[in-house]
Amino acid sequence: METRMNTSEMTVAQIARTAREAARELSAASLIQRNEALNAMAAALDRSRALLVKENSADVEAAREAKLDAPLLSRLELNDKKIDQLIGGLKALVKLPDPLNRTLLARELTPGLNLYRMSCPIGVLGVVFESRPDALVQIASLALKSGNAVLLKGGREAARTNAALFDALDRAVRDTGIPAGWAGLLQTREDVTAMLALEEDIDLIIPRGSNAFVRYIMEHTHIPVMGHAEGLCHTYIDKNADVSMAVSVTVDAKTQAYAVCNATETLLVHRDIAEAFLPKAAEALRAKGVRLLGDEMTREIINCEPASEEDWATEYLAPVLSIKTVGSVEEAVNHINRYGSHHTDAIITTDVEAREYFVSHVDSAGVYVNCSTRFADGFRYGFGAEVGISTSRLHARGPVGLEGLCTYKYVLLGSGQTVAGTLDGTWEYTHRDL
Amino acid sequence: METRMNTSEMTVAQIARTAREAARELSAASLIQRNEALNAMAAALDRSRALLVKENSADVEAAREAKLDAPLLSRLELNDKKIDQLIGGLKALVKLPDPLNRTLLARELTPGLNLYRMSCPIGVLGVVFESRPDALVQIASLALKSGNAVLLKGGREAARTNAALFDALDRAVRDTGIPAGWAGLLQTREDVTAMLALEEDIDLIIPRGSNAFVRYIMEHTHIPVMGHAEGLCHTYIDKNADVSMAVSVTVDAKTQAYAVCNATETLLVHRDIAEAFLPKAAEALRAKGVRLLGDEMTREIINCEPASEEDWATEYLAPVLSIKTVGSVEEAVNHINRYGSHHTDAIITTDVEAREYFVSHVDSAGVYVNCSTRFADGFRYGFGAEVGISTSRLHARGPVGLEGLCTYKYVLLGSGQTVAGTLDGTWEYTHRDL
Repeated sequence: METRMNTSEMTVAQIARTAREAARELSAASLIQRNEALNAMAAALDRSRALLVKENSADVEAAREAKLDAPLLSRLELNDKKIDQLIGGLKALVKLPDPLNRTLLARELTPGLNLYRMSCPIGVLGVVFESRPDALVQIASLALKSGNAVLLKGGREAARTNAALFDALDRAVRDTGIPAGWAGLLQTREDVTAMLALEEDIDLIIPRGSNAFVRYIMEHTHIPVMGHAEGLCHTYIDKNADVSMAVSVTVDAKTQAYAVCNATETLLVHRDIAEAFLPKAAEALRAKGVRLLGDEMTREIINCEPASEEDWATEYLAPVLSIKTVGSVEEAVNHINRYGSHHTDAIITTDVEAREYFVSHVDSAGVYVNCSTRFADGFRYGFGAEVGISTSRLHARGPVGLEGLCTYKYVLLGSGQTVAGTLDGTWEYTHRDL
Repeated sequence: METRMNTSEMTVAQIARTAREAARELSAASLIQRNEALNAMAAALDRSRALLVKENSADVEAAREAKLDAPLLSRLELNDKKIDQLIGGLKALVKLPDPLNRTLLARELTPGLNLYRMSCPIGVLGVVFESRPDALVQIASLALKSGNAVLLKGGREAARTNAALFDALDRAVRDTGIPAGWAGLLQTREDVTAMLALEEDIDLIIPRGSNAFVRYIMEHTHIPVMGHAEGLCHTYIDKNADVSMAVSVTVDAKTQAYAVCNATETLLVHRDIAEAFLPKAAEALRAKGVRLLGDEMTREIINCEPASEEDWATEYLAPVLSIKTVGSVEEAVNHINRYGSHHTDAIITTDVEAREYFVSHVDSAGVYVNCSTRFADGFRYGFGAEVGISTSRLHARGPVGLEGLCTYKYVLLGSGQTVAGTLDGTWEYTHRDL
């Protein structure tokens, strides 16, 4: 494979086919080999600082000329401090336990015939991510640690930075025996469209970006998609709640960060606690600059703008909060299941029955009791790293770390057993867990 | 819900929406309640024998007039013995452990804030199955035990039997408090087409039937699909193999049953063992009436019809076997990954290195050593029951039992924790498994 083409000269179908072949080799790479490759990535980033910062400056300059707004520019920037963080992240990933070759089930079917469910890589991932170039390093390294090949497509604004990062990482790992072509860099929007049709060679698409973008991907491929379009999270204040806890958790859930999928967008308040809770919550939220919209009863208590039906279905991603009063935990749960995005929803309550009802009936990836929806995050869950948060119901739900990038296969080790022999009494099923 | 419409008067969208609502209630039903419902199903089948057999006779009569072939007629028939088996299956299902509310992970994030990954139902399943009417009972009961609502569409030939079965089961469980509408019966092909578009209310489609049918479903929906289109399984005889074991496993893998997805369709034979193995294998297979097709070297040894490129990609589902000689385990693995369906593939070998290479490089749901591919089955794996076999890489792979009909949600139980408080030192992450 020494003479293989550079990915920039290959079609997306060729890149994906090469990745499929590389994935089969990579799935057999040892933990030591994969960790060595991660260490080589870290060393390569350290060595390539000057080039990376130079290429990034060109991207930032072009973005400034194109009048990108300040938060976008700041996310686009790759400086020495961010490179240090990336190197730290790679070293932390080396220390995480191997997600592969874990025995998930071991069972004797009949004496001498043992079944093992073993974790293994999914195969080939296609990841489309936003303008932050650090995402490229994080995703490529998660894929490598979990033995997956990966096609990467970053934001157009970061094209030069991404090309330099990809080149540094790809060269670095080849010296450690990782199969050439395990990662491929896509260049254009048309490349993404082409990738969505490659069902044979791509096993999972992970889109990160705006709601509209993620929804577009979901609607235009038959390849499984992992991720979330929307993060419309709720916090419900039950009638039996500690008011000061309810206020502090609500403030955190709404204001700890705004442009994030796990921020609370709608506050549900039981009518019996509304008069005690709402004035204090409103004061604390307004002190943080949050604009409040409420239903009729809310407005009788705290005088704010009216919330419309549309507000209940809106992910503000901004210092705006809609507030609705409800008559019961059942009403709160129905509202959440109807308008929510099945991401993360919380109840604040001291009542065990309300808690149990909420936990068993809310149909979301995260169901929280007496804490902030902002905890929905792979690092906070102790997964070490995350590739995203899934609101799909299948495979992986909630924050997805290395484990979510793995599947399993059944390995059956026998000594000549036949099914006919289980019917004629030569072998009898024992189904004994080992 | 006493006055709800009969499903035959509802649109598929209405049936699915009702199922979604029922699923939310059902997800909170206790194990006792679900098991009571399964017992009620068993009693109802026993009570309704006369009606079931009568309706089935009408279906069989119509099928006979339509000149359906004998195996199909035999699968269509529902007699007292089959009803006994169904009742036995329901009682066995009652005894299986609860797949729901299992703690899959328990971790203290920070003192007083504990994370639990809890198994829960997927939600609403859409199952399209073949003409065997017993499938309706098996699928409905697996769905119920795992807390899922289900839309069922059976074969047209079994329409009267299915309607009678559905009616008996649906009435029986309602008396046990299972929410009305937890199961819906679809009538026509158009109903299936309508279902494929209901992404909001159907979480998983499980198609069972011909390759072409399953592929049609996969290509016409954005809802996740679980199952397999093809079962093109291989058995590879390594150069270091016990010849008599190789012969007996090959005979079982090919002849124990023919019209099944886990039968071996292509036999791969290492050249170094071909002369010792092939004549004995050919004799044993021909004694069972199997027609053999081979590549050039095979034909030099056993004189059979030539196999073409097309044969390597053909799932015969019949007493036909294609045979190819290979020069190495690597060549065998490459053939399997290229032509196979990623279902189940076996190696017969006494060599540890060949075994390890095969197990780590074959990209299939089942990778077997020294045993028959026919073991790929939920009952044989000790799952108690199966809804099908999945060749998808995500969520569930291989035989799918109750566990594959479940997903999980993260339950986070706190005492007022905020993310801001983890940053200012009020709470520190411990990430201690409980």
